[in-house]
Amino acid sequence: MSDPVRSCDIQIRVRYAEVDQAGALHHSRYWVYFEMGRTELLRAQGLCYRDLEQQGVFFVIAKCSARFRSAAHYDDLLTLTTRVTKTGQARIDHVYELNRASASGSPELLTTAETTLACVNRRGKIIPIPQGVRTPT
Amino acid sequence: MSDPVRSCDIQIRVRYAEVDQAGALHHSRYWVYFEMGRTELLRAQGLCYRDLEQQGVFFVIAKCSARFRSAAHYDDLLTLTTRVTKTGQARIDHVYELNRASASGSPELLTTAETTLACVNRRGKIIPIPQGVRTPT
Amino acid sequence: MSDPVRSCDIQIRVRYAEVDQAGALHHSRYWVYFEMGRTELLRAQGLCYRDLEQQGVFFVIAKCSARFRSAAHYDDLLTLTTRVTKTGQARIDHVYELNRASASGSPELLTTAETTLACVNRRGKIIPIPQGVRTPT
Amino acid sequence: MSDPVRSCDIQIRVRYAEVDQAGALHHSRYWVYFEMGRTELLRAQGLCYRDLEQQGVFFVIAKCSARFRSAAHYDDLLTLTTRVTKTGQARIDHVYELNRASASGSPELLTTAETTLACVNRRGKIIPIPQGVRTPT
Repeated sequence: MSDPVRSCDIQIRVRYAEVDQAGALHHSRYWVYFEMGRTELLRAQGLCYRDLEQQGVFFVIAKCSARFRSAAHYDDLLTLTTRVTKTGQARIDHVYELNRASASGSPELLTTAETTLACVNRRGKIIPIPQGVRTPT
Repeated sequence: MSDPVRSCDIQIRVRYAEVDQAGALHHSRYWVYFEMGRTELLRAQGLCYRDLEQQGVFFVIAKCSARFRSAAHYDDLLTLTTRVTKTGQARIDHVYELNRASASGSPELLTTAETTLACVNRRGKIIPIPQGVRTPT
Repeated sequence: MSDPVRSCDIQIRVRYAEVDQAGALHHSRYWVYFEMGRTELLRAQGLCYRDLEQQGVFFVIAKCSARFRSAAHYDDLLTLTTRVTKTGQARIDHVYELNRASASGSPELLTTAETTLACVNRRGKIIPIPQGVRTPT
Repeated sequence: MSDPVRSCDIQIRVRYAEVDQAGALHHSRYWVYFEMGRTELLRAQGLCYRDLEQQGVFFVIAKCSARFRSAAHYDDLLTLTTRVTKTGQARIDHVYELNRASASGSPELLTTAETTLACVNRRGKIIPIPQGVRTPT
């Protein structure tokens, strides 16, 4: 039996509208990227977050933190690594690493972050994470 | 009987995250401002768009156009004028003028725009605009 | 001599944060997509908008219009076609078509739009479009 | 001599475009609000962040964290409290509390957050915080 998929990499091109007047990817946009990472990690596990919501299963951010080391810039091509670190009854923890490809070939680490998601129903009440989501095979 | 409210002015402070690396309010954000103008125009008419949606009445943008004359900048204090120009069975037309207060006191016109909204139900089907919304008193 | 590249297609996955509470891609986000289309059209022509800005050549939106036919939804995979329709001394006109792949295979046209860009320098003054940008080969 | 201003409250109306399809203020938008809080706290201290940037003084987010307790919704009227907790040679720490006015009159705490800003110059190099910004009077 194969191990569940616990990590995935996606590439993201920084958009013009995401960068502020200091020339840096605005810190609010990283959370949009991390959400894309979670969507694609689920897809790699054979799940679709859109379908989960239609079935009444929602994941909401309960807490988050980030450390910004270097700025990303317009048109940068970034690699986001999204990894599940812990799955509880009703919560999932992820960590994120955002890297920029450099001319030398070795990636430059720009940002690290962590989130804790809570699983809730349509009314925002905490519910157990459905079995298929907890231990994908 | 008093005339219905057809126009309203709101003040908007340009946020840091709304400005691009050329130092200009990004053109995508104007539509967010215009939407705020419509929300406040409805409120001045004694209506609340949040309540309308809860009653199953949605307004969606069918078409829009804008002309950008001068850029708005971070921390500018703008005045948005929102005006209803035409109300049909299932559509409402608005025009918008966005001005910046200048040191001389006379406002500087930055942007003009027009939108046509369609009234739809929860499933996106065109429906007649409810009477209270069409001719507010 | 080969014809200049006048059109390009890109694929865009609708992000969760781009969709509003009515479940539709918010109309303000389309302009972000169209800007991505222009960036990639330039790249297909061998140019990089980031470099142009560093050389003091900026393109700003002078006017725009759009017609929204059907809503795009979260996780939809869209194809954006960006096409140059006219190049003047200091302006470029583009048209955009945004389609969604459908189960039947034939794409569904969601949105059409047009923009006119003005070429300006760092201070916002209109300047002639550099020769290499006007007629790419 | 009066104490420096260390805290300020601002009111924010949640915009339609800021809310996601689950009906909640998207977690990425809170950082935009917190940035507004910092801008207004500086203004209450007699400073203008726009002017600071023009003088070559930039504040960038080095790290941040947030805890989300309850969701904010479209058209909610929120009160954001922004407070300086620590000022170092080249960094400033803030805490944030976001409350919603409730029908009963007592505010409902939605979110708490913390940020650490680093003071940098135009090239992103850490610099000492200018004296007037460190201890406003």
